[in-house]
Amino acid sequence: MPIFVRYYLSGRDYYGLLAGEDRIERISGSPFDGFQPTGEALTLAAVQILPPCRPTKVIAVGLNYRDHAREFNLKVPDEPLIFMKPPSSLLGAGEAIIAPTMSRRVDFEAELGVVIGRTCRRVTREQARGYILGYTCVNDITARDLQEKDGQWTRAKGFDTFCPVGPFLVTDIAPDDLAVQSFLNGEPRQSSRTRELIFSVEELVSFISRIMTLVPGDIISTGTPSGVGPMQPGDTIEVRVEQVGRLINTVVGE
Amino acid sequence: MPIFVRYYLSGRDYYGLLAGEDRIERISGSPFDGFQPTGEALTLAAVQILPPCRPTKVIAVGLNYRDHAREFNLKVPDEPLIFMKPPSSLLGAGEAIIAPTMSRRVDFEAELGVVIGRTCRRVTREQARGYILGYTCVNDITARDLQEKDGQWTRAKGFDTFCPVGPFLVTDIAPDDLAVQSFLNGEPRQSSRTRELIFSVEELVSFISRIMTLVPGDIISTGTPSGVGPMQPGDTIEVRVEQVGRLINTVVGE
Repeated sequence: MPIFVRYYLSGRDYYGLLAGEDRIERISGSPFDGFQPTGEALTLAAVQILPPCRPTKVIAVGLNYRDHAREFNLKVPDEPLIFMKPPSSLLGAGEAIIAPTMSRRVDFEAELGVVIGRTCRRVTREQARGYILGYTCVNDITARDLQEKDGQWTRAKGFDTFCPVGPFLVTDIAPDDLAVQSFLNGEPRQSSRTRELIFSVEELVSFISRIMTLVPGDIISTGTPSGVGPMQPGDTIEVRVEQVGRLINTVVGE
Repeated sequence: MPIFVRYYLSGRDYYGLLAGEDRIERISGSPFDGFQPTGEALTLAAVQILPPCRPTKVIAVGLNYRDHAREFNLKVPDEPLIFMKPPSSLLGAGEAIIAPTMSRRVDFEAELGVVIGRTCRRVTREQARGYILGYTCVNDITARDLQEKDGQWTRAKGFDTFCPVGPFLVTDIAPDDLAVQSFLNGEPRQSSRTRELIFSVEELVSFISRIMTLVPGDIISTGTPSGVGPMQPGDTIEVRVEQVGRLINTVVGE
């Protein structure tokens, strides 16, 4: 059950394996195309953690938690509603989310992220699991006022730093019933479980793969539970997904 | 005034310069980071033309032609409305657009595409021109029924093959008053000029760069004039932009 981490050290990025609480063992190659341990070990504290993969696209899903739909009396959708976040919005664990001057309200949204391992086109739900390499935490940061103004969500969800991902890429776990939570300055805000997903991880991979070819490193962010809310400069936001990790970022002004 | 072309030959892709009607001279390096002619020449007919760049993102713009807005009595927007097409949707000139079984109506949308040359973040309108490498033709293929159903346009505009781009990347031209046209099976369908753009090329680059960092090869598609319409398998669709080129694709069923 390898847990991968990508990190930056002395001018370049590397992949490693998590080896205990605070240790990384560098690998050659990558989690996507075969790897070999190098024997080189480091402490997590000595490196800058990067998002654990380099997606060509991040596909996210709107309203996908039954409890969220119930809370707002929303009709459960008959198909997933997808949107995208640009690669330029990615941010590593521990880095600062920049609240843009263009927006007056910037919200957190805790989500389970699915990392694609193999090129994937028109797969069935049953085949889907074989195309997934692993899981990570995603914070689908959203400028709520711009989301309402534009109708299209690209601007609201696409600012630089609006897609914290990580810190780890965890393989060989079952995604069916994991706790998904957020904590704003340590206070619990969102709390649900992936068994409440309207469209399961496998259904999402299958549905999206019938629209667009997914390639290694692409991320599917599976939707957020109820309890989203605004953040201010100075805040600390944590996305916690059971068995997957804790993604912690701070907020600063532009 | 170099005109670049990217092409595929014997298992890999190359950049070249257009040298006359039907000739390519291969270059080493790329249009983005310096290049040298190699002296190696080919005919265009001997290669497979690829999209002229490899964008990390394609940002497109909704309603952006004054004549289109007038025709439908739509309010002229006060800011550009942006959305994205995934890299997996890119298609080269001469290749087949696949009409997916998921949709009952697939439309063409002729557009001027702007190709970014240098990393670009928070630039002014006045600075924008210096970050543009050149221009190309884009066909913003859209599953009209799914666009209406979803509200978000990601699925409708994101299918594989839904972003024909090319055939050339044309530098050193002024984008301010170019004819933008489409022809379905040789019949004229759309016809306007970029002087009708509500938000100019420079305004779009500046606006988008205040949201997301643009990197070399990224494409901004500037919106489509009135006259969009559906295509059927067997059709041939041409996007023609004055001084930029003719982008011709066929349509096939899934």
